[in-house]
Amino acid sequence: MRVEILSTGEELITGQLVDSNAAWLAAGLLENGIHTLRTTSVGDDVDRLAAAMSEMAARSDLVLVTGGLGPTSDDLSAQAAARASGDTLTLNPEALSSMQAFFSRRGWTMPEANLKQAMLPSRAGVLENLTGTAPGFRVEIGGCLLVFMPGVPREMKAMFAGSVLPLLRERFKVGPGILLSRMTVFGLPESEVGSRLSGFQERFPDIRLGFRASFPLIEVKCMADNGQGTDADAGNRVAEAGAHADAGTRMAGALDYIKDKLGSRLFSDQGLTMEQEVGRLLILRRETLAAAESCTGGLVSSLLTDVAGSSGYFLLSAVTYANDAKTGVLGLNPETLAARGAVSEETALEMAVGVRRLAGADWGIATSGIAGPGGGSEEKPVGTVCIGIDGPGVSRARTFRFTFGDRSMNKKIFAVMALEVLRRNLVQDRNSA
Amino acid sequence: MRVEILSTGEELITGQLVDSNAAWLAAGLLENGIHTLRTTSVGDDVDRLAAAMSEMAARSDLVLVTGGLGPTSDDLSAQAAARASGDTLTLNPEALSSMQAFFSRRGWTMPEANLKQAMLPSRAGVLENLTGTAPGFRVEIGGCLLVFMPGVPREMKAMFAGSVLPLLRERFKVGPGILLSRMTVFGLPESEVGSRLSGFQERFPDIRLGFRASFPLIEVKCMADNGQGTDADAGNRVAEAGAHADAGTRMAGALDYIKDKLGSRLFSDQGLTMEQEVGRLLILRRETLAAAESCTGGLVSSLLTDVAGSSGYFLLSAVTYANDAKTGVLGLNPETLAARGAVSEETALEMAVGVRRLAGADWGIATSGIAGPGGGSEEKPVGTVCIGIDGPGVSRARTFRFTFGDRSMNKKIFAVMALEVLRRNLVQDRNSA
Repeated sequence: MRVEILSTGEELITGQLVDSNAAWLAAGLLENGIHTLRTTSVGDDVDRLAAAMSEMAARSDLVLVTGGLGPTSDDLSAQAAARASGDTLTLNPEALSSMQAFFSRRGWTMPEANLKQAMLPSRAGVLENLTGTAPGFRVEIGGCLLVFMPGVPREMKAMFAGSVLPLLRERFKVGPGILLSRMTVFGLPESEVGSRLSGFQERFPDIRLGFRASFPLIEVKCMADNGQGTDADAGNRVAEAGAHADAGTRMAGALDYIKDKLGSRLFSDQGLTMEQEVGRLLILRRETLAAAESCTGGLVSSLLTDVAGSSGYFLLSAVTYANDAKTGVLGLNPETLAARGAVSEETALEMAVGVRRLAGADWGIATSGIAGPGGGSEEKPVGTVCIGIDGPGVSRARTFRFTFGDRSMNKKIFAVMALEVLRRNLVQDRNSA
Repeated sequence: MRVEILSTGEELITGQLVDSNAAWLAAGLLENGIHTLRTTSVGDDVDRLAAAMSEMAARSDLVLVTGGLGPTSDDLSAQAAARASGDTLTLNPEALSSMQAFFSRRGWTMPEANLKQAMLPSRAGVLENLTGTAPGFRVEIGGCLLVFMPGVPREMKAMFAGSVLPLLRERFKVGPGILLSRMTVFGLPESEVGSRLSGFQERFPDIRLGFRASFPLIEVKCMADNGQGTDADAGNRVAEAGAHADAGTRMAGALDYIKDKLGSRLFSDQGLTMEQEVGRLLILRRETLAAAESCTGGLVSSLLTDVAGSSGYFLLSAVTYANDAKTGVLGLNPETLAARGAVSEETALEMAVGVRRLAGADWGIATSGIAGPGGGSEEKPVGTVCIGIDGPGVSRARTFRFTFGDRSMNKKIFAVMALEVLRRNLVQDRNSA
């Protein structure tokens, strides 16, 4: 089965936007045993779009297209699809009513401008969009199926899962590779994860290993091909290895192998994010948390509250950017600040102690560091962060140094590091209890 | 001039890695007036790579290729280039000595395995790599120039700036293009921005208009080509319109047109984000800010501190997720909480007043709302947010209702709305002063 992905949009070929949709789709296809041969990006030009679609249709069995379904004049996917398939655009009643339903669910009237989004090639089939206005659609060009999805990642992902995958499963008889496990790693570069697991494939030939970096975390996935014949080699590998009967045993062996190689850097064998894992542990322990943030500027708190239900354990964060706020709100000793500086283990610890007391929480964590671009010194360069923790049986601070050099990356890794420090304490304490 | 970018590597078509190289290169080319027509990713397969190179060479004047120059068996770019150009691989003495120089600068001996990297098509020209081992190279296929760079972003960027751009400037006589303006809009859907500006292109045919949605903001960009003949159509459009002499006048007219159509929803004509614009206004007014956050969970604060230099005006944020923290830290009247509830204009206002006083800031803003998925009621559905503001001459709260239904989108739009409420007050006050 030959599959290609086409990402459309001027912003992709002018470098305004990095095309993350193609990678996401390729990974999603691979989970279903489908290998992508090529990905292409083309700008908002109907001739070039139609030419690309025709070429790809001639080479492939399936083309997934994203973007260009919006209501503005530079949204040209339907027009290009019509041209490439020798069809004309007509008002599609199914698409129209799906859009009207979307608007009426929100108590709105559909603006006139959105009518354009229901103008589809006359032979197109509609794919409903439950999370946005643009309906998706599919057309056939000489035996090749072309599927059109929105470019907005959230809408695209919902449509892929809800409409496109079922369609592919039915038409191409593919199936989810069996997902064995999903694990999350923090504190190792992707290359290091790769090299530590370089012997995996030889040892477990019937289990496919995948990585997905989502800074600063790396997700490690184990999958077995479904062996339904979309990939002859993979099918053979499964058969050779003795296949289904002892799949459970082999799976357990594979997970043990990975855990052994990655050690404590593998912090969740459920594929949780750091903030989800910390939340899970706090709920388990029936404990509460407060945070005092300086350099992370509220990001620790924002990550924690991204988890639904976090109000059950997360009480307070004080983002004390100014020194007066550190002393006034958190009760820091002005002498500590003067003697040690805002970025110091002493200050971070006093912040953690202060916010824990202020909130009456079981745990207090604190960050103080230099995210950059300015503010660094030889002694405390950009990328330095002091993390304080105060809780049952622990009251200390440590300094970490990162070399990403970018303000937003520093903020992110400082925040996740603070949660990691908390997590280690939550786990340690439980193990020793 | 027709230009394409080819990114090579199995990790790109399995979704393990998002291709940021292509976007970076496209942006770099555009700065020099060169428009990329298409970007393509192909995996580590010599037949598919050679086929892609041949196709692209037949369509284009220039192809930039990244990746596949390493020492391992899946690094196939030189082999594919030789096949596509009907050439053979030979040991290139210039490439070899460049590599040996790289190793000797570090006091190392070149490993045998790296010899492979000096095996280039016999007619290739070498591009030196000062930051890594893999030399780049260039070949010609029927009038098309193909340039091969490493896939490691750091090495690729150094080679592009140091060797490739000078080559392109000499060969294609290109130079930097002209960005006219970048504006930012909040409070209108992309479709509405598009339809309000639908008459723009007809009125200003020599100015290119682009939109980019970055939820919940929309960026509007105006660009003119440099008219140095790299794009004949654009050159003609500029010429027809009277070109350079009155370019300044036409640009000003275009900006006035856009501002008139979008009104106060266009909040920055410098392309700033909301947090940057609020920061700019606070610096201008020499005023300081504190925030009290409930439903936004630290996101207001995290956005504000994404701006370098925000420590100059942003004093404190209290993320008071728990009611005890609202009364204890911010000094809320427990009776207000009991009578009106946590999500109410009264509570939001008391939070704003409380945090302003606590921090000794000029302005206090506060958010209290229901981000979902749970917690909504008929009276206060998910998507409801109360925003309080307390500052010079203003002390009030308002309720807003959004219907995105998604926790992270709600958090984001609540946070930006709070900043927008502040911005309106910062601007109004200045205008009436």
